[in-house]
Amino acid sequence: MAKEISKIVIIGAGFGGIELAKALRNKPIEVLLIDQHNYHNFQPLMYQVATGGLEPGSIAYPVRRIFRRNKNVTFRMAEVQEVVPTENKLLTSIGEIRYDYLVIATGSQNNFFNFEPVKDQLLTLKSIPEALNLRSFIFQNLEKALTNTGDEPLEEIMNIAIVGGGPAGIELAGALAEMKRYVLPKDFPELDLSKMSINLYEASPKLLAAMSEEASAKSLVYLQQLGINVFLNARVQSYDGSKIALEDNTSFRTDTVIWTAGVKGAPIKGLPQSAIIGGNRIAVNEYNQVIAAERIFAIGDVAAHVTPEEPKGLPMLAPVAQQHGKLLAKNIIQLTKDRPMKAFDYSDKGVMATIGRRKAVVDLKVWKFQGTFAWLVWMFVHIMSLVGFRNKIVAFFDWMVNYFTYDRPLGLIIRPYRRENKPLD
Amino acid sequence: MAKEISKIVIIGAGFGGIELAKALRNKPIEVLLIDQHNYHNFQPLMYQVATGGLEPGSIAYPVRRIFRRNKNVTFRMAEVQEVVPTENKLLTSIGEIRYDYLVIATGSQNNFFNFEPVKDQLLTLKSIPEALNLRSFIFQNLEKALTNTGDEPLEEIMNIAIVGGGPAGIELAGALAEMKRYVLPKDFPELDLSKMSINLYEASPKLLAAMSEEASAKSLVYLQQLGINVFLNARVQSYDGSKIALEDNTSFRTDTVIWTAGVKGAPIKGLPQSAIIGGNRIAVNEYNQVIAAERIFAIGDVAAHVTPEEPKGLPMLAPVAQQHGKLLAKNIIQLTKDRPMKAFDYSDKGVMATIGRRKAVVDLKVWKFQGTFAWLVWMFVHIMSLVGFRNKIVAFFDWMVNYFTYDRPLGLIIRPYRRENKPLD
Repeated sequence: MAKEISKIVIIGAGFGGIELAKALRNKPIEVLLIDQHNYHNFQPLMYQVATGGLEPGSIAYPVRRIFRRNKNVTFRMAEVQEVVPTENKLLTSIGEIRYDYLVIATGSQNNFFNFEPVKDQLLTLKSIPEALNLRSFIFQNLEKALTNTGDEPLEEIMNIAIVGGGPAGIELAGALAEMKRYVLPKDFPELDLSKMSINLYEASPKLLAAMSEEASAKSLVYLQQLGINVFLNARVQSYDGSKIALEDNTSFRTDTVIWTAGVKGAPIKGLPQSAIIGGNRIAVNEYNQVIAAERIFAIGDVAAHVTPEEPKGLPMLAPVAQQHGKLLAKNIIQLTKDRPMKAFDYSDKGVMATIGRRKAVVDLKVWKFQGTFAWLVWMFVHIMSLVGFRNKIVAFFDWMVNYFTYDRPLGLIIRPYRRENKPLD
Repeated sequence: MAKEISKIVIIGAGFGGIELAKALRNKPIEVLLIDQHNYHNFQPLMYQVATGGLEPGSIAYPVRRIFRRNKNVTFRMAEVQEVVPTENKLLTSIGEIRYDYLVIATGSQNNFFNFEPVKDQLLTLKSIPEALNLRSFIFQNLEKALTNTGDEPLEEIMNIAIVGGGPAGIELAGALAEMKRYVLPKDFPELDLSKMSINLYEASPKLLAAMSEEASAKSLVYLQQLGINVFLNARVQSYDGSKIALEDNTSFRTDTVIWTAGVKGAPIKGLPQSAIIGGNRIAVNEYNQVIAAERIFAIGDVAAHVTPEEPKGLPMLAPVAQQHGKLLAKNIIQLTKDRPMKAFDYSDKGVMATIGRRKAVVDLKVWKFQGTFAWLVWMFVHIMSLVGFRNKIVAFFDWMVNYFTYDRPLGLIIRPYRRENKPLD
């Protein structure tokens, strides 16, 4: 006798949730996908939206459109408030939702560590509204620099501090450096750009800690070639709105602190306390089942399967989430047939990051390379990963314009940045 | 002896201000262009942003980029608070600005007439943030309709009322009707779209009052073919947030009232009271000089040259503003040479409007036509009018995708609409 699984509820339309729902298309299972936004967004290119290289519409795609032809997949835009595991139900902004099986694919959120008390003063990159805020903030500051009457040092208005030397930090630093070099002299000829420093602070001894030595070393060279001041072993200690201070007592005056120094899981309320482990992630077994809540699964960034080999769980990467989603779809179908599930085994296809035009680093399993070819591979992989034909074409076109004209197409302050606006976005 | 004109200040980077500044490029005159936004936007396509046909980045272009190679044109992003004509200076958000000659090109603003007290409940189309609010509002309401538990009639959530049968109103109505017909059945298969009515109210006896009888009649036919309920001679009287009432005591339940019923001039403070005439416009002479303030000019929507033939001044149209700007540039150069200025004479090249795919109306001086060819002409003219190669290509591409797939590419709720957010935008 096959078990009947009437309803799978997936929370989160990120890489994991979308992949899972896709793999369950047209299967004899009712799937409800929930997200607080009506679109899936391509997180790895968020820094491009922030720096005016791409429009938000190019990296986002309406979730409903992905599942248009699939009658068994339903989407609801809603915020999940809490799960009640004992009753197999969710409390949400659109009422109670019952599930037979629940999949938590809520991803990660910014981790501010010791900067938590000043987080409202920091700029972040985790969502499209955040990226647009960052874009507006930078361009508003350049306008402010033009009319500065000397109350505030020009350096403080123009300087930029980036905290964190992971992929997000170095990609953003590279894009800002190219903007400073190629675009700003044309758009702001009156500004003395020599007063603008871009500093990148990394707490560990190397950039791109998760990548190879070659990638780390080369990305440092690339950033320095672009004029970024990179500080390694540099732990930031405090920020007072105009000066960021380090543990070694040095400091840097700036209005603009961009926080890419860490993420933590974004689990939902109501799970047993024992299920939440280090990094605010949900402990799962090899089938992505939440420990101590058998009808609940967790995939992607929010899930951690702790093993002796991976004492912190796998890194928070899109491919992990996608592979989680794909396997879980198969396992759920196995469950409906009362057959055993298969344990997750991550297949690491490689990691890459780009710093600027013809400057990228790629680590494949057997081959590590950097430079122009790496940059082409990076572009190809990212274009092909965008959802939808229209987005692939428009992003490709914008990058070509950027490459040939040395220009970023989009420097529009569509919605001005205001601090008091931030929580509303 | 030539008069020395050291500084022309232009307020507003709309059609008039941009055209004037362009025509003064590389002339021996110092030009300062001021706008509260850092971009010029193409107002006639605002309804496309609102209905998800184009991204904001496609109809906006950074002002600085237009004047990159022109050392005599400077741009400042600032809000003008007041002009002090007796001292030839402006008070602005970035301090005092002195001028030798001032050009007011501030355009128009929504005119709510008897709906002024409820204007915060209305949706409008005059700026990009307003258009994005409208887009978010419509898609949020569709999501709400899906989870409606019956407290509010489904019709009220889904219905749309458009007030005003001018170009903005009918173009928006057509786009919404096509969205309802081609896109919503695919994206919201669970919704009973027969409960969604789109009503358009026009106070006068005909649509497109400024165009020919043929254009008015045909646009009515087109809208009716698309399923829009058009009400002529229909004066709206009140709106209570859920019901719009007409003077004939009929009413229509709807959450969504889009106001395109009128505009008025947007003059700046500090002008002599006698200079402000009907429609809140600034009275100017045949050289666009403000009556009673000889060092101040006004061009575009905000300016009205009243003559026996044009007792209300020329209509508020982009070509009028552009021709004002072009001639004023010549006249200013004449002034610097102490030569006589030339009187403005509007050359009416024609007017056009589009209702939907292969449905448009064009009035040229000697030829009036409607249908597929009119639609092609409309598309060509609008694509070519967008500023920048990138915007032309991306808009063309999005329209082609739209034409061949019957789909609107972009239905993203990037920033949710919230009433309390509105004044901040």
